[in-house]
Amino acid sequence: MTTGVRRRMGVEERRQQLIGVALELFSHRSPDEVSIDEIAAAAGISRPLVYHYFPGKQSLYEAALRRAADDLASRFAEPHDGPLGARLVRVMGRFFDFVEEHGPGFSALMRGGPAGFAAGARADGAVPAAYAMIDGVRRAAREQILDHLGVRGTPPARLDLVVRSWVALAESTALIWLDGRRVPRGELEVQLVHDFAALAAVSAAYDADMAALVTRMLADEPADGPFGDLVGRLATLLATATATATATAKATAGTAATAGAPVPAAVGGTPAGQALR
Amino acid sequence: MTTGVRRRMGVEERRQQLIGVALELFSHRSPDEVSIDEIAAAAGISRPLVYHYFPGKQSLYEAALRRAADDLASRFAEPHDGPLGARLVRVMGRFFDFVEEHGPGFSALMRGGPAGFAAGARADGAVPAAYAMIDGVRRAAREQILDHLGVRGTPPARLDLVVRSWVALAESTALIWLDGRRVPRGELEVQLVHDFAALAAVSAAYDADMAALVTRMLADEPADGPFGDLVGRLATLLATATATATATAKATAGTAATAGAPVPAAVGGTPAGQALR
Repeated sequence: MTTGVRRRMGVEERRQQLIGVALELFSHRSPDEVSIDEIAAAAGISRPLVYHYFPGKQSLYEAALRRAADDLASRFAEPHDGPLGARLVRVMGRFFDFVEEHGPGFSALMRGGPAGFAAGARADGAVPAAYAMIDGVRRAAREQILDHLGVRGTPPARLDLVVRSWVALAESTALIWLDGRRVPRGELEVQLVHDFAALAAVSAAYDADMAALVTRMLADEPADGPFGDLVGRLATLLATATATATATAKATAGTAATAGAPVPAAVGGTPAGQALR
Repeated sequence: MTTGVRRRMGVEERRQQLIGVALELFSHRSPDEVSIDEIAAAAGISRPLVYHYFPGKQSLYEAALRRAADDLASRFAEPHDGPLGARLVRVMGRFFDFVEEHGPGFSALMRGGPAGFAAGARADGAVPAAYAMIDGVRRAAREQILDHLGVRGTPPARLDLVVRSWVALAESTALIWLDGRRVPRGELEVQLVHDFAALAAVSAAYDADMAALVTRMLADEPADGPFGDLVGRLATLLATATATATATAKATAGTAATAGAPVPAAVGGTPAGQALR
């Protein structure tokens, strides 16, 4: 970032440079571990000059967080072209790029440490700035998804729940991934798209509006897209599970009948079982 | 809790009483909003006497949190009897009881505010006590699930991911529920059990070890249990979606062939579609 040529920066330019330097440092270590001296050194200016632009570490941390939040939210933007599953896979790719670029800082922030950093300075009980920004990014994610689903205005309660809980799932999956990287991120990007379909399907199993939405969502999916592929694989898995369950139930038919359980074949074991042959 | 009869409490008894009073207050409002004066008044003792037992609000908050964490972890304990789905539904019932009893305090804690409260006092960068306790409860939840799944020692990476991300999902679902209670909690208790099966199934669709585990898990489920019911409903939903997708694909067959997509019928639409008739 620094060149051999020294020149005088404008105020706004210097502020933006400091935010960039700070974000880079805060991304790789917990904010508690980054000092103003270090930020000054990385920016090639004196410590007092940093204080000329920012009153303290917290305001610089919040500015860096603001830039990171805007950056992440901008990655959710995706053209409304082509099947939904493929769009979501592309967004997940950009989300994991972000997580990879800001790994330790993202972990520290989401694990409540630096939210504490931001909250500690306030005795007035106001929502910590860091939390408000995280919440803003979550809202941006939800709005993008609802927009792609063609939902305008306030979403129905069950759809809202599916979307919000899936956003939380994406966050926690990223955090678990950062903690050891035991599963390749490419696999997780696709898996999260599948998880969205799965959570929507569970909701749809008991709610007519959600069922209509899921059917509409899947109707536009190509058979070789992420959703189409999953539907095929799940059909096989369900058929195996149903066949196994039917076999187990037949073996214990006497017990089940005594307990008043319905005949398991009523679940539709036979037709689904045919898919296996 | 207080009676007309006044008597002198022992040191430990008084400490336990104060923790109980504090937990009750911290459960219904954000810790920032609860004062030592209020705790003293609710316990029927003087403010200086509170300080005789606890050095300050933070230590009292941490003691209350410790009790709540132990209480919640104890609710995960479930006998290894009967089908897994029914066990998980019972645990979810007790989890939502806890969430209902400690609603606002649970929200404030999980949304990072009071984690900040606990973290704000520490400049040494140590993990905030509140966060460590939350993490301990999450670990207890994971261990219980793995134990019920019959997994000993370190779980395979993908199973670990499913279990950890589902625990996170249960937390966020509870938080979303508290924010307006737009979906009945009984529905969410069952839905979370279904979500567990769904996340496991997605993982199983691409991983042989997970497939074996899911098949084994579903084999012991009665057809009228939460998993059996879901399998039947999902089979119908998948059949509808597949049939719709097949119809859509047939209508656009020329385009699909040009794009090199495989014939959608290969997903197995016809056999599954029979379940609808």
